[in-house]
Amino acid sequence: MTVAYDGTQYAGWQVQLRRQTVQGALEKAIAQVANERVRVTGSGRTDSGVHAIAQVASFSLSHWRARAEDLGRALNSKLPPDIAVSEIVDAAADFHAIRDALGKRYRYQLQIGGGRDAFEYRYRWHLPGPIDGAAMRLAAEQLRGLHDFASFQAAGSDRKTTVRDVRALEIIDQDAAGGAEQGGDGEGVKRLAIEVEADGFLYNMVRNIVGTLVEVGRGKRDPAWAAEVLAARDRTVAGPTAPPHGLFLLRVDYHPSCRADHPACQVDSGWETESR
Amino acid sequence: MTVAYDGTQYAGWQVQLRRQTVQGALEKAIAQVANERVRVTGSGRTDSGVHAIAQVASFSLSHWRARAEDLGRALNSKLPPDIAVSEIVDAAADFHAIRDALGKRYRYQLQIGGGRDAFEYRYRWHLPGPIDGAAMRLAAEQLRGLHDFASFQAAGSDRKTTVRDVRALEIIDQDAAGGAEQGGDGEGVKRLAIEVEADGFLYNMVRNIVGTLVEVGRGKRDPAWAAEVLAARDRTVAGPTAPPHGLFLLRVDYHPSCRADHPACQVDSGWETESR
Repeated sequence: MTVAYDGTQYAGWQVQLRRQTVQGALEKAIAQVANERVRVTGSGRTDSGVHAIAQVASFSLSHWRARAEDLGRALNSKLPPDIAVSEIVDAAADFHAIRDALGKRYRYQLQIGGGRDAFEYRYRWHLPGPIDGAAMRLAAEQLRGLHDFASFQAAGSDRKTTVRDVRALEIIDQDAAGGAEQGGDGEGVKRLAIEVEADGFLYNMVRNIVGTLVEVGRGKRDPAWAAEVLAARDRTVAGPTAPPHGLFLLRVDYHPSCRADHPACQVDSGWETESR
Repeated sequence: MTVAYDGTQYAGWQVQLRRQTVQGALEKAIAQVANERVRVTGSGRTDSGVHAIAQVASFSLSHWRARAEDLGRALNSKLPPDIAVSEIVDAAADFHAIRDALGKRYRYQLQIGGGRDAFEYRYRWHLPGPIDGAAMRLAAEQLRGLHDFASFQAAGSDRKTTVRDVRALEIIDQDAAGGAEQGGDGEGVKRLAIEVEADGFLYNMVRNIVGTLVEVGRGKRDPAWAAEVLAARDRTVAGPTAPPHGLFLLRVDYHPSCRADHPACQVDSGWETESR
């Protein structure tokens, strides 16, 4: 299933005792609708306050006999309004939302300058400004490509390899693109987004990249510093971790054969194939 | 003061016992900052769930000796994040936020078609669609100008006159204007806004106008029906009241002489004038 959520009110993705989580809300809704207790596996865990436009998660039901679309509709009627299922499809029998992910794309949103915003505060890191966008773009260029991102990994992580392929790292001027709908545009307010696409991400990698680029944008460091941070392979060298609320998981990519309706998919979908 | 708020979490503007309200939050913050209990008068009461981009409210302090701007900064540090003061200026001594208002502008936001949206659900009335925008525009034309809006007043209101001058009533295609930042654009989703400007508004007037225009947009009524509703001067004839969460108070207009720094303003601003 593909699911969007506003992470503001949740203690992150992963189920926790006595805390509202996105995974927990989804599992509860599935139990209500399908009358089965299942484990939902997300493509990755998002932290408390982090949002998703299109998180992907998988689960398996033993007794559900209606179509996947009907399940989506039923779940939406049970889920809280800040979690919405946009699509459910039958997956290959061996599909795994984490292991099969080919890549992901995130967006991090900034508000530069201006006053406090009663609407955007949920979705943007507010920096008093000014910010040098050109310097940030120069720094970003050095982080693109296949590198060891150990410096951008949260302390205490123990991934086998910290090499990742950053396929895209873009600084986007959101005012030029049409800009904010809600808030009254104060004087001198600028809205920037940093989008990062990679084959995989280390824990806090996007927020550490953003924190580092913002150090450059603020003029505290030269653009060339980004390459030094990368070379150091040491978390203590990079900039601070940007706060969670500016971060959106935009997309998770899978090979088309992960869908049960793909010709290359060998899963026996039984009645499902006949009923369509 | 000019204040923006996301009304989702509030039981409306007006102070109520044991309920969180915008007026209550402002009065509490002023008491904390200025050490005075004051009554804050808004240009009008917004209902539970209604938002404001620029509500105007007034209050008077006896002991505050710093500048109005400093008060704004101090209030913002005490207010919850979904209420933000954007400006505070010294007003004429006899200023009254309701009585002196020359006009107001509201926006009502619609989502036509598409699925549930985890972000926009706070700010748009979701209609399954389709909606005939051209028919809505024809209906809107008939409501512009000076009319008796008794049919669009909430039942039980007792305003002395129900005649209002609707100076603008526009149907705006928000997708063309740059569109939604957050939500992933589903297929066939359309975002419309209805903006209404008038010298004054009856209780629920905007939401009743929107409910009536939506009846036309849905094809349940002809555009000419809007004129019939107006002529009937009977609330039961109009369309249903649109839900509160799509509504934003955009602006309240006052004569410039309502500000203490206007030359026509005879208020004795004492030390204030000297210190600038």
